[in-house]
Amino acid sequence: MKAPDLRQLVYRANRELADSGLVMGTFGNVSGIDRASGVFAIKPSGVPYEELTPAHMVLVSLETGASVESGLRPSSDTATHLELYRAFGSCGGIVHTHSEFATVFAQARTPIRCMGTTHADYFYGDVPVTRPMTREEVERDYEKNTGLVIVETFRGARLSPEDVPAVLVANHGPFTWGADAFKAIEHARVLEYVARVEWRVRAMGAEAPPPETCLVDKHFLRKHGPKAYYGQK
Amino acid sequence: MKAPDLRQLVYRANRELADSGLVMGTFGNVSGIDRASGVFAIKPSGVPYEELTPAHMVLVSLETGASVESGLRPSSDTATHLELYRAFGSCGGIVHTHSEFATVFAQARTPIRCMGTTHADYFYGDVPVTRPMTREEVERDYEKNTGLVIVETFRGARLSPEDVPAVLVANHGPFTWGADAFKAIEHARVLEYVARVEWRVRAMGAEAPPPETCLVDKHFLRKHGPKAYYGQK
Amino acid sequence: MKAPDLRQLVYRANRELADSGLVMGTFGNVSGIDRASGVFAIKPSGVPYEELTPAHMVLVSLETGASVESGLRPSSDTATHLELYRAFGSCGGIVHTHSEFATVFAQARTPIRCMGTTHADYFYGDVPVTRPMTREEVERDYEKNTGLVIVETFRGARLSPEDVPAVLVANHGPFTWGADAFKAIEHARVLEYVARVEWRVRAMGAEAPPPETCLVDKHFLRKHGPKAYYGQK
Amino acid sequence: MKAPDLRQLVYRANRELADSGLVMGTFGNVSGIDRASGVFAIKPSGVPYEELTPAHMVLVSLETGASVESGLRPSSDTATHLELYRAFGSCGGIVHTHSEFATVFAQARTPIRCMGTTHADYFYGDVPVTRPMTREEVERDYEKNTGLVIVETFRGARLSPEDVPAVLVANHGPFTWGADAFKAIEHARVLEYVARVEWRVRAMGAEAPPPETCLVDKHFLRKHGPKAYYGQK
Repeated sequence: MKAPDLRQLVYRANRELADSGLVMGTFGNVSGIDRASGVFAIKPSGVPYEELTPAHMVLVSLETGASVESGLRPSSDTATHLELYRAFGSCGGIVHTHSEFATVFAQARTPIRCMGTTHADYFYGDVPVTRPMTREEVERDYEKNTGLVIVETFRGARLSPEDVPAVLVANHGPFTWGADAFKAIEHARVLEYVARVEWRVRAMGAEAPPPETCLVDKHFLRKHGPKAYYGQK
Repeated sequence: MKAPDLRQLVYRANRELADSGLVMGTFGNVSGIDRASGVFAIKPSGVPYEELTPAHMVLVSLETGASVESGLRPSSDTATHLELYRAFGSCGGIVHTHSEFATVFAQARTPIRCMGTTHADYFYGDVPVTRPMTREEVERDYEKNTGLVIVETFRGARLSPEDVPAVLVANHGPFTWGADAFKAIEHARVLEYVARVEWRVRAMGAEAPPPETCLVDKHFLRKHGPKAYYGQK
Repeated sequence: MKAPDLRQLVYRANRELADSGLVMGTFGNVSGIDRASGVFAIKPSGVPYEELTPAHMVLVSLETGASVESGLRPSSDTATHLELYRAFGSCGGIVHTHSEFATVFAQARTPIRCMGTTHADYFYGDVPVTRPMTREEVERDYEKNTGLVIVETFRGARLSPEDVPAVLVANHGPFTWGADAFKAIEHARVLEYVARVEWRVRAMGAEAPPPETCLVDKHFLRKHGPKAYYGQK
Repeated sequence: MKAPDLRQLVYRANRELADSGLVMGTFGNVSGIDRASGVFAIKPSGVPYEELTPAHMVLVSLETGASVESGLRPSSDTATHLELYRAFGSCGGIVHTHSEFATVFAQARTPIRCMGTTHADYFYGDVPVTRPMTREEVERDYEKNTGLVIVETFRGARLSPEDVPAVLVANHGPFTWGADAFKAIEHARVLEYVARVEWRVRAMGAEAPPPETCLVDKHFLRKHGPKAYYGQK
């Protein structure tokens, strides 16, 4: 993909995120990567969504982590995206929001349990929360360490980032990813939806058990993998 | 009704559902049946609502359960609709959504109690939840078995699908029905409203008793049956 | 006021109510009275808001309770409005909604406590709930008895309908009133707002005491009565 | 700044507040000060937002507290703004709303805890609640005393109004401030967002600890002070 095309794509994804209702003000960001050229594009830091143009998108090298061209500063979360692209090889786009209900679970340090079929359609099990970061991790290379602690969460639990394309960073908010930037946004939308529903199950004090494993398998696998039968061929 | 008319009607109903705020993305579906010709029309699987045209609607035989004409795949929930049309003879339209508050009760495996007059205007008693499905039911003919477990729920409780035109499928979401597709949508809207109110009664920890039977009778019967007096003649 | 003017006014009020977000479908209604001619106008029963015209508004005699002219059936709640106009002499307009949060308190049979200054700006104390109606009251002249039980609630508690222009009918929903139909709508809006806030105070399990009496007095009296100083003279 | 410019600026800020969804009806107000001329402009009392013009903005002397020119009555909360401008020297604009979730905490007399990074980006610690006012404070110079009790809250807790540009007045609602009127509105928006999230953490009964101090420091200081690195230079 040529650099102008990648910028255009990531620009459009950032506009879609702005229209999604998942972000307020200048919070949140989307990036997308071109694995062939080893470059990803990301929103600049602190620029209002309505002022963004494709040329504002900042290109970053997957190898060095540095901006490829001089220009605007990339999002302050760039180092987090970088670590995720490095560790999760199938990830083509990343979204960070502070969407309300997902952030509630991040602040409550509580995983979003897989309690229903919509959750299972997209996330094959609970959405995990990272451990709190140490003082040293926060004070030195905070954003890079945020990425590393996400990777540690998945590796420690032997979770596949394809099976569960979302995480809650403790006391911060969600990151989601997908095959490209637009899939990552779709996952951010569904994550917020399942967080809303699960929050309400908890807030009404329901003691319901989670669904049987077979139901979760059924829903995830009818949309993913070789036996998928949802949608048109 | 001619096939093009049925497709047109069900197309319009699916657009109305998309505008209702009850569905997100490609989730949810509406079908409508023409009992005379033994055919129902339903949304195709996984097609975004904004791309739908009347010609996309898939015609399905009530007798065989197969598509009447070659074309798009019908909604993955088609076999559920089929079983409901077969068992509930007065049902002319069916809606499936993952509307937020009704889904909360489905995930909490908790019936929506009849706690007020709006509920009683539409649903003559609590809205029930299906039992969890067995591994065998999930693994073989899952969608068909979803329909059968709904029918079992009504028969087991001696509930009339006309008195309570709604159900919560455990860990999944609501189905509603009615005399036609548009009535089924109206029931989906009211179900979500009564779920919102009842959820809030529960979440505030109120220990209020349900309304007296006479009040529920009064409201249901002033809108339904031979002594109805609501609306214009 | 001439009959066409009263119809026009009440028509406009019903449209404003429809736009307020406080009602869904054909639920809810507004009426307004012309005390000089002893006639009030009210929404017809079961007509969608978007089809209403001024000519649809039904005129009802305060003395006989009957429609003044032949035409559409008045709202099924007309007999309730009638009793309120008869008992509350200063009431010029009445609104009935099933607005979500006020209805929650009605279903929970829980008064909306006066917990803050906005509440006190409009309602001089808690908003009461009626007692449950008896089987006889429900089965015979239900709507008229709904009005009578509201009046009983205010008389029994020595509450002035001017100080607290709102009530919650148990397991049903709120009625509000005011100097005219538009003031009654304003009270319906504020009632829903204070219900939202008080519901959230309860749902977070806060054990906060109500505000000191002097604060409630201050706020009600700076907007009402001879020493009011809010707004322009 | 010339008086017409100050009126224009504060007019625009009041329109932005009206569009923000943070106020209902005529509630709420924004003011902005020109420290050089010792004058601030504020919304008039009880005028609907859609009727406001720049000429309606009332100019008030910081020294005397009186209107500089004859004209409309200033907001009934003017004396509160005056005391805040006098005590908080760096404050250039003030906003008062009854935004729903912040008001919930005010009515619950519960501080909004700093539980996440968005909170820490804007408010360096918990957002405090004022003590209840005495009968004498309410009955005499109520609005002025509201300002004084806010100032007392900050001084008593040795809180800097720059570090925490927001307060909850018990049983009333929030005030926010900032370098100018628009920054004060931004703080009102973020305050409502963090109140929503924290309310939901509490309502789900989560017992999560607050974030580590180092994380709060990191977020506040990456946006404020000499080592800030968020946004473009």
